[in-house]
Amino acid sequence: MKKAREAASFDTHELTCLIYGGEQTVQQRRVAFERVERALGTRDTSILPRCYGNMNRDEAYDEGLEVGRVTFEDGRHHNHDFFLESTPRGMIANASPFGLVRFLFEPAIQYCGNEEQKAKWLPLSRAGKILGTYCQTELGHGTFVRGLETTATFDQTADEFVIHSPTLSSTKFWPGGLGFSTTHTVVMARLMIGTNDHGPHLFIVQLRSTEDGMPLPGIKLGDVGLKMAYNGTDNGFACFELVRIPRSNMLMGHVTVSRDGAYSAIPGHAVLSYSTMLLGRVRIARITAFQLAQATTIAVRYSTVREQGVGPDSSGPNETRIISYRSQHFRLLTLVAKAYATLFASRKCDADHTKLRVQQESGEHSMLPYMHSLSAGMKAWATSDAADGAEDARKCCGGHGFLMISGLPEIVASITAAATFEGENYVLWQQVGRYLLKCVDALKAGQKLHPDMVYLNDGNGVSASCKAQRTQFLGRGVQLSIYRHRAQRLVFSVHAAVRSSSMAPPDAWNYHMMAIISAARAHIEYIALQAFVTQLENLPASTTPALQLALNRLCSLFALSNLINPRSVDVLSFVEDGHLSSPQLDMIREQVNELLDALLPDAIALTDAWDFTDASLCSALGMADGNVYENIMRWVEQLPINQKAWKENSGVYEPGWTDSVDPILKAKL
Amino acid sequence: MKKAREAASFDTHELTCLIYGGEQTVQQRRVAFERVERALGTRDTSILPRCYGNMNRDEAYDEGLEVGRVTFEDGRHHNHDFFLESTPRGMIANASPFGLVRFLFEPAIQYCGNEEQKAKWLPLSRAGKILGTYCQTELGHGTFVRGLETTATFDQTADEFVIHSPTLSSTKFWPGGLGFSTTHTVVMARLMIGTNDHGPHLFIVQLRSTEDGMPLPGIKLGDVGLKMAYNGTDNGFACFELVRIPRSNMLMGHVTVSRDGAYSAIPGHAVLSYSTMLLGRVRIARITAFQLAQATTIAVRYSTVREQGVGPDSSGPNETRIISYRSQHFRLLTLVAKAYATLFASRKCDADHTKLRVQQESGEHSMLPYMHSLSAGMKAWATSDAADGAEDARKCCGGHGFLMISGLPEIVASITAAATFEGENYVLWQQVGRYLLKCVDALKAGQKLHPDMVYLNDGNGVSASCKAQRTQFLGRGVQLSIYRHRAQRLVFSVHAAVRSSSMAPPDAWNYHMMAIISAARAHIEYIALQAFVTQLENLPASTTPALQLALNRLCSLFALSNLINPRSVDVLSFVEDGHLSSPQLDMIREQVNELLDALLPDAIALTDAWDFTDASLCSALGMADGNVYENIMRWVEQLPINQKAWKENSGVYEPGWTDSVDPILKAKL
Repeated sequence: MKKAREAASFDTHELTCLIYGGEQTVQQRRVAFERVERALGTRDTSILPRCYGNMNRDEAYDEGLEVGRVTFEDGRHHNHDFFLESTPRGMIANASPFGLVRFLFEPAIQYCGNEEQKAKWLPLSRAGKILGTYCQTELGHGTFVRGLETTATFDQTADEFVIHSPTLSSTKFWPGGLGFSTTHTVVMARLMIGTNDHGPHLFIVQLRSTEDGMPLPGIKLGDVGLKMAYNGTDNGFACFELVRIPRSNMLMGHVTVSRDGAYSAIPGHAVLSYSTMLLGRVRIARITAFQLAQATTIAVRYSTVREQGVGPDSSGPNETRIISYRSQHFRLLTLVAKAYATLFASRKCDADHTKLRVQQESGEHSMLPYMHSLSAGMKAWATSDAADGAEDARKCCGGHGFLMISGLPEIVASITAAATFEGENYVLWQQVGRYLLKCVDALKAGQKLHPDMVYLNDGNGVSASCKAQRTQFLGRGVQLSIYRHRAQRLVFSVHAAVRSSSMAPPDAWNYHMMAIISAARAHIEYIALQAFVTQLENLPASTTPALQLALNRLCSLFALSNLINPRSVDVLSFVEDGHLSSPQLDMIREQVNELLDALLPDAIALTDAWDFTDASLCSALGMADGNVYENIMRWVEQLPINQKAWKENSGVYEPGWTDSVDPILKAKL
Repeated sequence: MKKAREAASFDTHELTCLIYGGEQTVQQRRVAFERVERALGTRDTSILPRCYGNMNRDEAYDEGLEVGRVTFEDGRHHNHDFFLESTPRGMIANASPFGLVRFLFEPAIQYCGNEEQKAKWLPLSRAGKILGTYCQTELGHGTFVRGLETTATFDQTADEFVIHSPTLSSTKFWPGGLGFSTTHTVVMARLMIGTNDHGPHLFIVQLRSTEDGMPLPGIKLGDVGLKMAYNGTDNGFACFELVRIPRSNMLMGHVTVSRDGAYSAIPGHAVLSYSTMLLGRVRIARITAFQLAQATTIAVRYSTVREQGVGPDSSGPNETRIISYRSQHFRLLTLVAKAYATLFASRKCDADHTKLRVQQESGEHSMLPYMHSLSAGMKAWATSDAADGAEDARKCCGGHGFLMISGLPEIVASITAAATFEGENYVLWQQVGRYLLKCVDALKAGQKLHPDMVYLNDGNGVSASCKAQRTQFLGRGVQLSIYRHRAQRLVFSVHAAVRSSSMAPPDAWNYHMMAIISAARAHIEYIALQAFVTQLENLPASTTPALQLALNRLCSLFALSNLINPRSVDVLSFVEDGHLSSPQLDMIREQVNELLDALLPDAIALTDAWDFTDASLCSALGMADGNVYENIMRWVEQLPINQKAWKENSGVYEPGWTDSVDPILKAKL
């Protein structure tokens, strides 16, 4: 491992600073992790982490509560930007029972409340006097919010809203911390005034007494049980039985219900109320990059020390380090590249989101449709590719990657959840598709597009073929043009098909849905590559040539490997119109082989640079020292099931032996 | 659900009989499931299954022991062929602590023992007087058996072998039931006689006393801890400290060590000793079909009752059933087709394996290389595609698919394990590749090939282009020729590249590894399609035209959707040489759309036909009644964490509230 680490062509710390945005943040982050990990007692990784011992549902939640409390309190004192990543495994905020306080509850009030409401609720929440969650999804209803059934009926006499779950399927289901940990929530419910149904709106509802935790009258709360991951939090359900809240608890930043029941709303208020989700999606894209980086860190470290078979680098008694095998480093290095690509793409989203917020502060919302599409697409792209990728990284660790103590199953399961929550990806792709078709409509009507969409106007180029040869494929212009051409071609072709269809619009949409999703994906992949390129063009002036070279190779690997990777999604569309010929594809394969050879010595440095602590990786395979087998056996020997069998019965597991094994052996036939 | 069930174009029961090989087996299987499920108390699915309540490592194993004992004892009395599938979730045998007795321990003795050994050990095992497992993998060594470190040193004086684990990395690691449940094992160890290392051989070693379960002297045994799945069994580890066994415990069917230490072996004995694994791989391919079918059954049922959004079939107050969306039924129906394709492909393997066994009984082993390659490739293809597919089916269920009570996480995790165990898939693909290159060598040397490989000789057709138009793509000949052409092209092209390379052979192999894997996959996909087609050509004469039609559509969907599915693996190779043009691909897309529309009404019937009991699916989403929300909430309300909070504290979870939530709320800042 030491040798592999020294083989790096650049200074790892320089890259770490680039990832976290400077030396100071890197140091702050390190100190914060050390502080939290010491408080939790996880810093000494020779001790089997509690989560790998005997934990059932209750105990997993008990640990989650403790982690949540320590992290929350640390965040209260230090208020670091990376709060969201400082949970033990660097997981998304909703790994903690209190994670949605900052992630969704406060943003909902911030974005959708009026000044009075912000002044009342935000200080309470920030001080931890109340602990909030966010209730949107119902047992029977997900991303399609117009289908929600929970009602908020205005009672003019009492000047109150009555929150009610009219059916089993309207049970609020899934919100993190809802089961037992939170005291308040923002509820999305259909606003009913008299006989008018005004559709989904947001309401602050107190769930429990902040004194003794008792659920308020009419509210039934519980846990949804074991999940593939996130068992440290109590994703919960809530039934509301005619629960009354004051009129002032409706979030009235964009809509108003007056004392006499008059309803008014600014145009586009429904879309504005999704701003909370929009922020959530931007953050998910960012955190996904870190999660994928964790999976690749573990897999690259394991593959660097694991030896098997006789292959390219075997000499003397040693077998080949598995990372030397082409299939192994093809898979791992393309995933390393994807983690960086996702980080850089999320930075673009962050920057655009900041622009949007500035715009919105002055009451201007024109950027919202663009930002909605961008955040939806980036979330869908980042999470679906990272979910596939993390699982492939796990498979790269063979059998040992199937052990919970590898840390990988939990990381994979966490990422794969993100493909579903905060907007199911196939629904999000369609939202991107809808925006793209509208852009083409606008283009044809001579209207102005958002600057990032102007590329669509750059000729629709259906018949153009790529002219590049050999090393020309390393040129950024060539790479971008391949992605741009595909996006243009697919967008215009599906626009023509849908708009000229003789079917009813929902049927035409459905008939062409696969093509719509393809076009959306092609657009986002182009934007993502562009973000990577932009990032490279704007590196700090002090960046060393060695690091520049490594990052440039990584960018080319990202751009080119995607074209020829057997596991790439929707790769036919790069090729089927003849834009790239068979000899050109072989040239690209050759360039990818060269890039892999060049990047292989940097594999450890490119993953070390994310600067994950051993405690946060929580993996017997992925510790920085590379002592894989010692670390596995050290933890396995501490397993309660082994300790119990060895101590009490010198190697016999009781009562299992007596109840199940012995009766078979001694059966009278 | 009833309506969807009635929409079927054929008789579901007829298809069930086709799947299980006749009415009688279907009935036997039903009776066996009922008997086992009643014995286990899982038949009443209104009760929350134990595995979804509070289970830690110990309790999961305790349940596994009970399930294992009941299943083992039922199998003892009934000895049904479908023993392997009668574990509660229809999982592979190694879900049970006693599953490897029949799956690997007995076959190892059967295939590699001499007559005397078979006569001694097999009756003991069949009577359950001993319980065996199979120890091959070590902590530091997997599929590459030549790297194993465990030694079996011949002590001529004592006429014994000394089994020893010389290093930490030589610890036997992973065998099912090894931790605490089994009494004997077959161990693969390097045979050492004097200074000679004869490489890996097989030895029967007693692990524990059959009287009291105590590990025998010098043997340390334990559990490897929590895994992604299979927690009902104790995958374990074993260290051997100079453990002595009689010489007669070495399996001597193909090799002999005489009293005076003389070693003799029949040619190819090393390969013959893998016969056990070969059978294992054939069975895995078969069981994978059932597991994928379980995942699709749950996802299709859920998608049939889940409504969301306004789409093609929404009318009045109802939202659209999500299965009506193109992206949803594209994903689900292609997976349904793949489950059938996998079943039919595994039948071909079964048949060839039977031929091989007959051949081998008369001392003839010429079919072994072919069968080795076929079983390796089918195992790799079936498990990798099914792992991706089951996870996609899980994602089709949105958030609820992330709940453990959906049953899907366990199914997905079980299948994904199979991509690694009994031969890691990327290693297996290379074994297929090696065989393919040897076939081309043989062809060029004018030698005879196995009948299934003769197609390679059918012109290498690199430049041929497909002439089919529109509905001609539904022709079996056209479909087969597309797959055949790809396989031929890739095999010959990589053969030329590897054989003409100027690099050292291991380096040339490594450089072209991605192309080798592509060729292997293309070959197996051709064989799999051929198996589906053969199956259709040989349906029982009594098969109704309605069922024939449905199966024919399914076969075409399998063949054609793979060409244009955005998630297909390695799809570029169908197209990049111009074999299929862009207009032809659009025609194929159109045919796929037509097939999907035709098959959609049969979705429930095609999954019902696998005849899974509700108890064996163990899924709140996938019960036959389709009452998804009622079933979810019925189980969620029974969760111990909820029962505890509701009963003792009227809705407050203690001590979590007092220890973690309250301190945050009451913090003095």
